[in-house]
Amino acid sequence: MILHGYWRSGTSYRARIALNLKGLVYETAPVDLRTGAQTSDAYLALNPQGLVPALETGDGLVLTQSPAILEWLEETHPTPALLPTAAADRAAVRGMAALIGCDIHPLNNLRVLKAVRDLGADQAGVDAWAGRWILDGFAALEAQVQHHGEGWCFGGAPTLADCYLIPQIYSARRFNVDLTPFPRLLATEARASLHPAFMAAHPDNQPDGRPDAD
Amino acid sequence: MILHGYWRSGTSYRARIALNLKGLVYETAPVDLRTGAQTSDAYLALNPQGLVPALETGDGLVLTQSPAILEWLEETHPTPALLPTAAADRAAVRGMAALIGCDIHPLNNLRVLKAVRDLGADQAGVDAWAGRWILDGFAALEAQVQHHGEGWCFGGAPTLADCYLIPQIYSARRFNVDLTPFPRLLATEARASLHPAFMAAHPDNQPDGRPDAD
Repeated sequence: MILHGYWRSGTSYRARIALNLKGLVYETAPVDLRTGAQTSDAYLALNPQGLVPALETGDGLVLTQSPAILEWLEETHPTPALLPTAAADRAAVRGMAALIGCDIHPLNNLRVLKAVRDLGADQAGVDAWAGRWILDGFAALEAQVQHHGEGWCFGGAPTLADCYLIPQIYSARRFNVDLTPFPRLLATEARASLHPAFMAAHPDNQPDGRPDAD
Repeated sequence: MILHGYWRSGTSYRARIALNLKGLVYETAPVDLRTGAQTSDAYLALNPQGLVPALETGDGLVLTQSPAILEWLEETHPTPALLPTAAADRAAVRGMAALIGCDIHPLNNLRVLKAVRDLGADQAGVDAWAGRWILDGFAALEAQVQHHGEGWCFGGAPTLADCYLIPQIYSARRFNVDLTPFPRLLATEARASLHPAFMAAHPDNQPDGRPDAD
Protein backbone atom coordinates (compact mmCIF):
# COMPACT_ATOMS: atom_id res chain seq x y z
CA MET A 1 0.00 0.00 0.00
CA ILE A 2 1.06 3.57 -0.62
CA LEU A 3 -0.14 6.44 1.55
CA HIS A 4 -0.02 9.80 -0.17
CA GLY A 5 0.05 12.46 2.50
CA TYR A 6 1.75 15.38 4.13
CA TRP A 7 3.78 15.01 7.30
CA ARG A 8 1.87 17.66 9.25
CA SER A 9 -1.62 17.09 7.82
CA GLY A 10 -3.90 15.89 10.60
CA THR A 11 -5.84 13.62 8.26
CA SER A 12 -2.65 12.00 6.93
CA TYR A 13 -1.46 11.55 10.52
CA ARG A 14 -4.74 9.79 11.37
CA ALA A 15 -4.32 7.37 8.51
CA ARG A 16 -0.71 6.61 9.52
CA ILE A 17 -1.74 5.81 13.08
CA ALA A 18 -4.48 3.43 11.92
CA LEU A 19 -2.19 1.69 9.43
CA ASN A 20 0.44 1.27 12.14
CA LEU A 21 -2.06 0.03 14.73
CA LYS A 22 -3.18 -2.59 12.23
CA GLY A 23 0.44 -3.63 11.75
CA LEU A 24 0.31 -2.90 8.03
CA VAL A 25 3.40 -2.10 5.97
CA TYR A 26 3.03 0.83 3.59
CA GLU A 27 5.08 3.25 1.59
CA THR A 28 4.90 6.97 2.23
CA ALA A 29 4.50 9.24 -0.80
CA PRO A 30 4.92 12.84 0.38
CA VAL A 31 2.65 15.54 -1.10
CA ASP A 32 4.00 18.97 -0.20
CA LEU A 33 0.94 21.10 0.50
CA ARG A 34 3.03 24.25 0.85
CA THR A 35 4.26 24.08 -2.73
CA GLY A 36 0.85 23.07 -4.10
CA ALA A 37 1.86 19.51 -4.98
CA GLN A 38 -1.72 18.43 -4.26
CA THR A 39 -2.80 20.26 -7.42
CA SER A 40 -0.17 18.70 -9.69
CA ASP A 41 -1.48 16.70 -12.64
CA ALA A 42 0.04 13.55 -11.19
CA TYR A 43 -1.71 13.92 -7.86
CA LEU A 44 -5.02 15.04 -9.34
CA ALA A 45 -4.99 11.91 -11.48
CA LEU A 46 -4.92 9.98 -8.22
CA ASN A 47 -7.32 12.15 -6.22
CA PRO A 48 -9.22 14.71 -8.32
CA GLN A 49 -10.28 16.54 -5.16
CA GLY A 50 -6.66 17.56 -4.62
CA LEU A 51 -6.62 16.83 -0.90
CA VAL A 52 -4.59 14.44 1.22
CA PRO A 53 -4.52 11.65 2.19
CA ALA A 54 -5.07 9.09 -0.57
CA LEU A 55 -4.37 5.43 -0.03
CA GLU A 56 -3.40 3.13 -2.88
CA THR A 57 -4.36 -0.29 -1.62
CA GLY A 58 -2.19 -2.23 -4.06
CA ASP A 59 -4.96 -3.76 -6.16
CA GLY A 60 -5.79 -0.70 -8.22
CA LEU A 61 -8.06 0.85 -5.62
CA VAL A 62 -7.45 4.43 -4.50
CA LEU A 63 -9.23 5.47 -1.32
CA THR A 64 -9.74 9.09 -0.29
CA GLN A 65 -11.19 10.81 2.78
CA SER A 66 -9.60 9.68 6.03
CA PRO A 67 -12.89 8.66 7.72
CA ALA A 68 -13.59 6.30 4.82
CA ILE A 69 -9.98 5.03 4.83
CA LEU A 70 -10.12 4.25 8.54
CA GLU A 71 -13.45 2.42 8.27
CA TRP A 72 -12.09 0.48 5.29
CA LEU A 73 -9.02 -0.53 7.27
CA GLU A 74 -11.26 -1.69 10.12
CA GLU A 75 -13.42 -3.77 7.78
CA THR A 76 -10.62 -5.33 5.76
CA HIS A 77 -8.09 -5.77 8.59
CA PRO A 78 -10.28 -6.32 11.66
CA THR A 79 -7.49 -7.24 14.08
CA PRO A 80 -6.68 -5.46 16.30
CA ALA A 81 -10.13 -3.87 16.37
CA LEU A 82 -10.29 -0.08 16.43
CA LEU A 83 -14.01 -0.11 17.18
CA PRO A 84 -15.65 -1.88 20.12
CA THR A 85 -18.22 -4.64 19.58
CA ALA A 86 -21.52 -3.22 20.84
CA ALA A 87 -23.37 -0.82 18.54
CA ALA A 88 -23.81 1.76 21.31
CA ASP A 89 -20.08 1.69 22.07
CA ARG A 90 -19.21 1.95 18.40
CA ALA A 91 -21.46 5.00 18.19
CA ALA A 92 -19.64 6.53 21.16
CA VAL A 93 -16.24 6.04 19.49
CA ARG A 94 -17.49 7.27 16.14
CA GLY A 95 -19.10 10.23 17.88
CA MET A 96 -15.74 11.26 19.33
CA ALA A 97 -14.07 10.78 15.97
CA ALA A 98 -16.73 12.90 14.24
CA LEU A 99 -16.53 15.60 16.90
CA ILE A 100 -12.89 16.04 15.92
CA GLY A 101 -13.27 15.22 12.24
CA CYS A 102 -16.28 17.49 11.62
CA ASP A 103 -16.37 20.13 14.36
CA ILE A 104 -12.68 20.88 14.88
CA HIS A 105 -10.30 19.79 12.15
CA PRO A 106 -12.10 21.18 9.08
CA LEU A 107 -11.93 24.65 10.59
CA ASN A 108 -8.19 24.75 11.07
CA ASN A 109 -6.60 23.03 8.14
CA LEU A 110 -4.27 24.82 5.79
CA ARG A 111 -6.72 25.86 3.06
CA VAL A 112 -9.25 27.21 5.56
CA LEU A 113 -6.68 29.18 7.53
CA LYS A 114 -5.55 30.75 4.27
CA ALA A 115 -9.16 31.81 3.65
CA VAL A 116 -9.35 33.27 7.17
CA ARG A 117 -6.21 35.28 6.45
CA ASP A 118 -7.81 36.45 3.21
CA LEU A 119 -10.64 37.87 5.32
CA GLY A 120 -8.07 40.11 7.00
CA ALA A 121 -7.11 38.14 10.10
CA ASP A 122 -3.51 38.52 11.32
CA GLN A 123 -1.59 35.67 12.95
CA ALA A 124 -3.19 36.35 16.33
CA GLY A 125 -6.60 36.33 14.67
CA VAL A 126 -5.82 33.04 12.94
CA ASP A 127 -4.68 31.48 16.21
CA ALA A 128 -7.83 32.73 17.93
CA TRP A 129 -10.00 31.29 15.14
CA ALA A 130 -8.32 27.90 15.32
CA GLY A 131 -8.17 27.91 19.10
CA ARG A 132 -11.85 28.61 19.52
CA TRP A 133 -13.01 25.46 17.74
CA ILE A 134 -10.38 23.36 19.46
CA LEU A 135 -11.37 24.60 22.92
CA ASP A 136 -15.10 24.12 22.26
CA GLY A 137 -14.58 20.61 20.93
CA PHE A 138 -12.01 19.51 23.48
CA ALA A 139 -14.26 20.59 26.36
CA ALA A 140 -16.96 18.20 25.14
CA LEU A 141 -14.42 15.51 24.37
CA GLU A 142 -12.78 15.70 27.81
CA ALA A 143 -16.14 14.84 29.40
CA GLN A 144 -16.65 11.93 27.01
CA VAL A 145 -13.19 10.53 27.67
CA GLN A 146 -13.80 10.91 31.40
CA HIS A 147 -16.94 8.82 30.96
CA HIS A 148 -15.68 6.19 28.52
CA GLY A 149 -11.90 6.14 28.79
CA GLU A 150 -9.67 3.83 30.73
CA GLY A 151 -6.32 5.11 29.51
CA TRP A 152 -7.45 5.80 25.96
CA CYS A 153 -10.45 7.72 24.63
CA PHE A 154 -12.66 4.66 24.93
CA GLY A 155 -11.64 1.79 27.17
CA GLY A 156 -8.13 0.47 27.66
CA ALA A 157 -6.91 0.15 24.08
CA PRO A 158 -6.60 2.57 21.15
CA THR A 159 -9.67 3.09 18.98
CA LEU A 160 -10.53 5.24 15.98
CA ALA A 161 -11.13 8.08 18.44
CA ASP A 162 -7.46 8.09 19.42
CA CYS A 163 -6.45 8.11 15.75
CA TYR A 164 -8.31 11.42 15.50
CA LEU A 165 -7.39 12.86 18.89
CA ILE A 166 -3.60 12.63 18.82
CA PRO A 167 -3.20 14.58 15.54
CA GLN A 168 -5.68 17.17 16.81
CA ILE A 169 -3.64 17.68 19.99
CA TYR A 170 -0.51 18.05 17.84
CA SER A 171 -2.33 20.71 15.85
CA ALA A 172 -3.60 22.45 18.99
CA ARG A 173 -0.01 22.84 20.19
CA ARG A 174 0.91 24.53 16.91
CA PHE A 175 -1.79 27.12 17.59
CA ASN A 176 -0.53 27.61 21.15
CA VAL A 177 -3.80 26.42 22.67
CA ASP A 178 -3.67 26.00 26.46
CA LEU A 179 -4.51 22.34 27.02
CA THR A 180 -4.33 22.30 30.81
CA PRO A 181 -8.17 22.23 31.12
CA PHE A 182 -8.10 18.80 29.46
CA PRO A 183 -6.14 16.45 31.76
CA ARG A 184 -7.67 13.29 30.31
CA LEU A 185 -6.84 14.25 26.77
CA LEU A 186 -3.29 15.04 27.88
CA ALA A 187 -3.03 11.68 29.63
CA THR A 188 -4.06 10.00 26.40
CA GLU A 189 -1.45 11.98 24.52
CA ALA A 190 1.21 10.92 27.06
CA ARG A 191 0.23 7.29 26.63
CA ALA A 192 0.30 7.58 22.84
CA SER A 193 3.75 9.17 22.97
CA LEU A 194 5.06 5.83 24.27
CA HIS A 195 3.12 3.61 21.87
CA PRO A 196 5.11 2.43 18.82
CA ALA A 197 2.22 2.86 16.35
CA PHE A 198 1.67 6.46 17.40
CA MET A 199 5.39 7.20 17.64
CA ALA A 200 6.05 5.97 14.11
CA ALA A 201 3.13 8.05 12.83
CA HIS A 202 4.33 11.31 14.39
CA PRO A 203 4.95 14.10 11.86
CA ASP A 204 8.56 14.52 12.95
CA ASN A 205 9.22 10.90 12.05
CA GLN A 206 8.06 11.19 8.44
CA PRO A 207 10.46 11.37 5.49
CA ASP A 208 9.12 14.83 4.61
CA GLY A 209 8.93 15.98 8.22
CA ARG A 210 10.92 19.05 9.22
CA PRO A 211 10.61 20.00 12.86
CA ASP A 212 11.94 23.50 12.16
CA ALA A 213 9.42 24.30 9.40
CA ASP A 214 7.03 27.20 9.78
CA MET B 1 -36.96 7.39 19.39
CA ILE B 2 -36.72 11.14 19.69
CA LEU B 3 -34.65 13.23 17.30
CA HIS B 4 -33.59 16.57 18.74
CA GLY B 5 -32.77 18.85 15.84
CA TYR B 6 -33.42 22.02 13.94
CA TRP B 7 -35.50 22.10 10.77
CA ARG B 8 -32.84 23.75 8.63
CA SER B 9 -29.73 22.16 10.15
CA GLY B 10 -28.03 19.99 7.54
CA THR B 11 -26.95 17.42 10.11
CA SER B 12 -30.49 17.11 11.51
CA TYR B 13 -31.80 16.79 7.97
CA ARG B 14 -29.33 13.95 7.30
CA ALA B 15 -30.52 12.08 10.35
CA ARG B 16 -34.18 12.51 9.37
CA ILE B 17 -33.53 11.10 5.90
CA ALA B 18 -31.76 8.04 7.30
CA LEU B 19 -34.47 7.40 9.89
CA ASN B 20 -37.12 7.67 7.19
CA LEU B 21 -35.23 5.44 4.76
CA LYS B 22 -35.04 2.81 7.49
CA GLY B 23 -38.78 3.14 8.01
CA LEU B 24 -38.36 4.09 11.66
CA VAL B 25 -40.95 6.06 13.59
CA TYR B 26 -39.57 8.89 15.71
CA GLU B 27 -40.65 12.03 17.47
CA THR B 28 -39.20 15.39 16.50
CA ALA B 29 -38.00 17.64 19.32
CA PRO B 30 -37.19 21.05 17.84
CA VAL B 31 -34.12 22.91 19.11
CA ASP B 32 -34.25 26.53 17.91
CA LEU B 33 -30.65 27.41 17.08
CA ARG B 34 -31.55 31.04 16.42
CA THR B 35 -32.70 31.61 20.01
CA GLY B 36 -29.81 29.62 21.49
CA ALA B 37 -31.96 26.70 22.65
CA GLN B 38 -28.98 24.42 22.07
CA THR B 39 -27.27 26.03 25.08
CA SER B 40 -30.25 25.66 27.43
CA ASP B 41 -29.65 23.59 30.56
CA ALA B 42 -32.17 21.04 29.38
CA TYR B 43 -30.46 20.51 26.05
CA LEU B 44 -26.95 20.55 27.47
CA ALA B 45 -28.01 17.81 29.88
CA LEU B 46 -28.80 15.76 26.79
CA ASN B 47 -25.84 16.80 24.66
CA PRO B 48 -23.14 18.70 26.56
CA GLN B 49 -21.57 19.79 23.27
CA GLY B 50 -24.63 21.95 22.59
CA LEU B 51 -24.99 20.96 18.95
CA VAL B 52 -27.74 19.23 17.01
CA PRO B 53 -28.77 16.56 16.29
CA ALA B 54 -29.07 14.23 19.26
CA LEU B 55 -31.00 10.98 19.03
CA GLU B 56 -32.64 9.41 22.06
CA THR B 57 -32.92 5.77 21.10
CA GLY B 58 -35.59 4.91 23.65
CA ASP B 59 -33.51 2.71 25.92
CA GLY B 60 -31.64 5.45 27.75
CA LEU B 61 -29.01 5.92 25.05
CA VAL B 62 -28.37 9.38 23.62
CA LEU B 63 -26.40 9.47 20.39
CA THR B 64 -24.70 12.58 19.06
CA GLN B 65 -22.82 13.45 15.86
CA SER B 66 -24.73 12.64 12.70
CA PRO B 67 -22.00 10.42 11.15
CA ALA B 68 -22.12 8.22 14.27
CA ILE B 69 -25.93 8.27 14.32
CA LEU B 70 -26.13 7.16 10.69
CA GLU B 71 -23.63 4.33 11.15
CA TRP B 72 -25.52 3.24 14.29
CA LEU B 73 -28.78 3.17 12.34
CA GLU B 74 -27.11 1.08 9.65
CA GLU B 75 -25.76 -1.40 12.20
CA THR B 76 -28.90 -1.73 14.29
CA HIS B 77 -31.47 -1.54 11.46
CA PRO B 78 -29.63 -3.05 8.50
CA THR B 79 -32.62 -3.16 6.12
CA PRO B 80 -32.80 -1.40 3.75
CA ALA B 81 -29.03 -1.10 3.60
CA LEU B 82 -27.58 2.38 3.21
CA LEU B 83 -24.10 1.01 2.52
CA PRO B 84 -23.20 -1.47 -0.24
CA THR B 85 -21.72 -4.86 0.59
CA ALA B 86 -18.15 -4.78 -0.75
CA ALA B 87 -15.57 -2.97 1.36
CA ALA B 88 -14.31 -0.94 -1.61
CA ASP B 89 -17.85 0.21 -2.41
CA ARG B 90 -18.53 1.06 1.21
CA ALA B 91 -15.36 3.17 1.18
CA ALA B 92 -16.60 4.97 -1.93
CA VAL B 93 -19.93 5.82 -0.28
CA ARG B 94 -18.29 6.83 2.98
CA GLY B 95 -15.79 8.90 1.01
CA MET B 96 -18.61 10.89 -0.59
CA ALA B 97 -20.30 11.31 2.78
CA ALA B 98 -17.06 12.51 4.36
CA LEU B 99 -16.36 14.88 1.49
CA ILE B 100 -19.61 16.63 2.37
CA GLY B 101 -19.48 16.05 6.11
CA CYS B 102 -15.87 17.19 6.58
CA ASP B 103 -14.93 19.40 3.62
CA ILE B 104 -18.14 21.32 2.98
CA HIS B 105 -20.72 21.35 5.75
CA PRO B 106 -18.49 22.30 8.73
CA LEU B 107 -17.49 25.47 6.90
CA ASN B 108 -20.97 26.81 6.38
CA ASN B 109 -23.02 25.99 9.42
CA LEU B 110 -24.55 28.68 11.57
CA ARG B 111 -21.85 29.04 14.23
CA VAL B 112 -19.06 29.22 11.67
CA LEU B 113 -20.81 31.78 9.49
CA LYS B 114 -21.28 33.91 12.61
CA ALA B 115 -17.54 33.71 13.17
CA VAL B 116 -16.90 34.71 9.54
CA ARG B 117 -19.15 37.74 10.05
CA ASP B 118 -17.18 38.56 13.20
CA LEU B 119 -14.07 38.74 10.99
CA GLY B 120 -15.75 41.56 9.11
CA ALA B 121 -17.37 39.79 6.17
CA ASP B 122 -20.63 41.26 4.87
CA GLN B 123 -23.44 39.12 3.45
CA ALA B 124 -21.76 38.90 0.05
CA GLY B 125 -18.55 37.86 1.76
CA VAL B 126 -20.37 35.20 3.75
CA ASP B 127 -22.04 33.85 0.62
CA ALA B 128 -18.68 33.78 -1.15
CA TRP B 129 -17.10 31.95 1.78
CA ALA B 130 -19.84 29.32 1.86
CA GLY B 131 -20.03 29.05 -1.91
CA ARG B 132 -16.34 28.43 -2.32
CA TRP B 133 -16.30 25.23 -0.25
CA ILE B 134 -19.52 24.02 -1.83
CA LEU B 135 -18.21 24.55 -5.37
CA ASP B 136 -14.87 22.88 -4.61
CA GLY B 137 -16.53 19.89 -3.00
CA PHE B 138 -19.36 19.50 -5.48
CA ALA B 139 -16.92 19.51 -8.40
CA ALA B 140 -15.18 16.46 -6.94
CA LEU B 141 -18.48 14.88 -5.98
CA GLU B 142 -20.01 15.32 -9.44
CA ALA B 143 -17.17 13.23 -10.91
CA GLN B 144 -17.64 10.54 -8.27
CA VAL B 145 -21.39 10.35 -8.86
CA GLN B 146 -20.73 10.17 -12.61
CA HIS B 147 -18.50 7.19 -11.92
CA HIS B 148 -20.54 5.36 -9.29
CA GLY B 149 -24.10 6.57 -9.62
CA GLU B 150 -27.04 5.01 -11.39
CA GLY B 151 -29.71 7.47 -10.33
CA TRP B 152 -28.39 8.03 -6.83
CA CYS B 153 -24.87 8.92 -5.64
CA PHE B 154 -23.85 5.28 -5.64
CA GLY B 155 -25.82 2.75 -7.63
CA GLY B 156 -29.56 2.66 -8.05
CA ALA B 157 -30.76 3.08 -4.48
CA PRO B 158 -30.19 5.71 -1.78
CA THR B 159 -27.10 5.34 0.39
CA LEU B 160 -25.52 7.31 3.20
CA ALA B 161 -24.02 9.55 0.52
CA ASP B 162 -27.48 10.74 -0.52
CA CYS B 163 -28.37 11.42 3.12
CA TYR B 164 -25.49 13.90 3.11
CA LEU B 165 -25.92 15.28 -0.42
CA ILE B 166 -29.54 16.36 -0.37
CA PRO B 167 -29.22 18.61 2.72
CA GLN B 168 -26.02 20.07 1.26
CA ILE B 169 -27.80 20.96 -1.97
CA TYR B 170 -30.59 22.57 0.08
CA SER B 171 -27.94 24.60 1.88
CA ALA B 172 -26.20 25.53 -1.39
CA ARG B 173 -29.45 27.03 -2.67
CA ARG B 174 -29.70 29.20 0.43
CA PHE B 175 -26.28 30.64 -0.43
CA ASN B 176 -27.35 31.21 -4.04
CA VAL B 177 -24.71 28.86 -5.40
CA ASP B 178 -25.02 28.19 -9.13
CA LEU B 179 -25.49 24.43 -9.36
CA THR B 180 -25.72 24.13 -13.14
CA PRO B 181 -22.14 22.72 -13.39
CA PHE B 182 -23.37 19.67 -11.45
CA PRO B 183 -26.05 17.94 -13.54
CA ARG B 184 -25.66 14.59 -11.82
CA LEU B 185 -26.07 16.09 -8.38
CA LEU B 186 -29.16 17.94 -9.61
CA ALA B 187 -30.57 14.74 -11.07
CA THR B 188 -30.13 13.09 -7.69
CA GLU B 189 -31.88 16.01 -6.03
CA ALA B 190 -34.77 15.70 -8.51
CA ARG B 191 -35.09 12.01 -7.75
CA ALA B 192 -35.00 12.62 -4.01
CA SER B 193 -37.70 15.27 -4.32
CA LEU B 194 -40.09 12.49 -5.35
CA HIS B 195 -38.98 9.96 -2.73
CA PRO B 196 -41.21 9.78 0.37
CA ALA B 197 -38.32 9.40 2.84
CA PHE B 198 -36.59 12.49 1.49
CA MET B 199 -39.84 14.44 1.14
CA ALA B 200 -40.82 13.81 4.74
CA ALA B 201 -37.35 14.88 5.89
CA HIS B 202 -37.39 18.21 4.03
CA PRO B 203 -36.98 21.25 6.29
CA ASP B 204 -40.25 22.78 5.12
CA ASN B 205 -42.10 19.70 6.32
CA GLN B 206 -40.84 19.87 9.91
CA PRO B 207 -43.00 21.11 12.80
CA ASP B 208 -40.54 23.97 13.41
CA GLY B 209 -40.03 24.67 9.72
CA ARG B 210 -40.87 28.16 8.46
CA PRO B 211 -40.28 28.65 4.74
CA ASP B 212 -40.36 32.43 5.16
CA ALA B 213 -37.69 32.56 7.87
CA ASP B 214 -34.46 34.41 7.26
